[in-house]
Amino acid sequence: MNYHPDQTPTKKDILKAAIRIGQYIHKTPVLTSENLNSIFGCQLYFKCENLQKAGAFKSRGAVNTVFSLNENDVISGVCTHSSGNHAAALSRAASLKGIVAHIVMPEDSSKVKISAVKHYGGKITFCKPTLASRETALIKVIEKTAALEVHPYNDPRIIAGQATAAMEMFGEIDPLDIIMAPVGGGGLLSGTALAANYFSDKTKVIAAEPEQADDAFQSFKANTFYPSVNPNTIADGLRTSLGSLTFPIIQKYVDDIVTVSEKGIVEAMKLIWERMKIIVEPSSAVPLAAILEKKFDCPGKKIGIIISGGNVDLNALPW
Amino acid sequence: MNYHPDQTPTKKDILKAAIRIGQYIHKTPVLTSENLNSIFGCQLYFKCENLQKAGAFKSRGAVNTVFSLNENDVISGVCTHSSGNHAAALSRAASLKGIVAHIVMPEDSSKVKISAVKHYGGKITFCKPTLASRETALIKVIEKTAALEVHPYNDPRIIAGQATAAMEMFGEIDPLDIIMAPVGGGGLLSGTALAANYFSDKTKVIAAEPEQADDAFQSFKANTFYPSVNPNTIADGLRTSLGSLTFPIIQKYVDDIVTVSEKGIVEAMKLIWERMKIIVEPSSAVPLAAILEKKFDCPGKKIGIIISGGNVDLNALPW
Repeated sequence: MNYHPDQTPTKKDILKAAIRIGQYIHKTPVLTSENLNSIFGCQLYFKCENLQKAGAFKSRGAVNTVFSLNENDVISGVCTHSSGNHAAALSRAASLKGIVAHIVMPEDSSKVKISAVKHYGGKITFCKPTLASRETALIKVIEKTAALEVHPYNDPRIIAGQATAAMEMFGEIDPLDIIMAPVGGGGLLSGTALAANYFSDKTKVIAAEPEQADDAFQSFKANTFYPSVNPNTIADGLRTSLGSLTFPIIQKYVDDIVTVSEKGIVEAMKLIWERMKIIVEPSSAVPLAAILEKKFDCPGKKIGIIISGGNVDLNALPW
Repeated sequence: MNYHPDQTPTKKDILKAAIRIGQYIHKTPVLTSENLNSIFGCQLYFKCENLQKAGAFKSRGAVNTVFSLNENDVISGVCTHSSGNHAAALSRAASLKGIVAHIVMPEDSSKVKISAVKHYGGKITFCKPTLASRETALIKVIEKTAALEVHPYNDPRIIAGQATAAMEMFGEIDPLDIIMAPVGGGGLLSGTALAANYFSDKTKVIAAEPEQADDAFQSFKANTFYPSVNPNTIADGLRTSLGSLTFPIIQKYVDDIVTVSEKGIVEAMKLIWERMKIIVEPSSAVPLAAILEKKFDCPGKKIGIIISGGNVDLNALPW
């Protein structure tokens, strides 16, 4: 999907998204931990999108997009290729709208993710686990079904939906010094940055990315798009490349991107499980890993962190 | 501690407790899951005391008791014997009050529990892992320090504190048909039953207990106190016997007690982790296990469940 920066969601687009999705998503809680605050010497606020419908922030963008579409455009359903949370979120959104979702999934997708898609009524087409196979399989699905593609992140309606998480947080917590999100394809990050710009313009936006999948960091620093090549990180939600719309929004509205080690991600993930008593997936722990690894100046600051999701295989934990 | 049923907390005691503890505890969220509702055919509301300070509902009773005490009575601090969540909660409450907490812990207590007590500044005396050793060690601590004993459950101030969890829930959710709590010593259950009686008198109170630690079930059915003898359950918070105050309250205000298998507890625990994305300890899963094992008539009902705590050793999960 190629979008132009002119299609950047406006403040009104985000407010409309919040109204549109309100009845279909959870207004997730913001949790705090004295214990983590005392470890890190700052005040941390966790926006718990792991407690969101289908276990991830992706439900926001998917519902906003599906419910923005013209009835005639979606008469043949929607489709996407995804091995992760977007697949389940889109299946759920389509089911709420009463249309079908065709999902192309790599054949090595985790059982948990496959059964989530099935649970929400998504129709799965399996393919080889390469980007080329996924794209080819999706084209075939579109030719066969005439379903409308919903991209996981490079779409202004998706971005406006994801922005509502940070917007809710700004409405609930006193001015934050910093808001953090992990960055993969950039849908959550660009939405978060726009929400900060429109609703809390003194809040700095800092993204965190695995060192071993640092394409957004490289692109941001060089002001040139670099794709994600052979990303090798436990943070399975952050292996994708930025898009033609998410990248310019990030260039314009994000203050900094920092990178973290794999060890830091696992340590931060376990800290959140132990101290916060919530289940988060590795991608969600990447911002706290940046605080743990002292990648920017945190002490004394009020820092909001978007916990992106909680879909983990409980039989294969990284400790 | 021997209390008479006349010392049963009143409605006013519970309201006062809520005000007294308000600034020191979390008003925990009530979470729901479409997914679990569709599995069980009822509407479930989870009051998440696993997200409470120190990871369990015990913080409510401990803070209420410590902050109810006369300054002169606690000049030498407070004490208790506990291998579990009461130890950490009392240490935290004492530290907030600026007094010392002496905690007698069995030497085989889990590292996680020991480090939680230390984190909150509790002074630990280790003893052999038998009830007799614990009681003897506690008497010695009292002789030496003149600290005031705070019992983990058989105390009206503890019960009034624990009652605030259900009270908050009744204030937030439309009339519940049923409210459930696990039962060990009966502090949470008696508080929950009193809260139902005072604030939501059409709500039935159903307790759940492990089959392999069914002393409360036996006592309730026979109307005679039976102690807990050799309890052998994964639900480590539910191994204790009822008390002289908790038992009569339970006899009077609880509608039913049902028992569940160990397999059911583990299955329910994993379901909560997977579907709710929250970390709960085995004791917390006992009420859902009763629904899973169809121990009472659930379909179509609105059921509140108090999730008692989330302190689990993440390196030793039961699956």
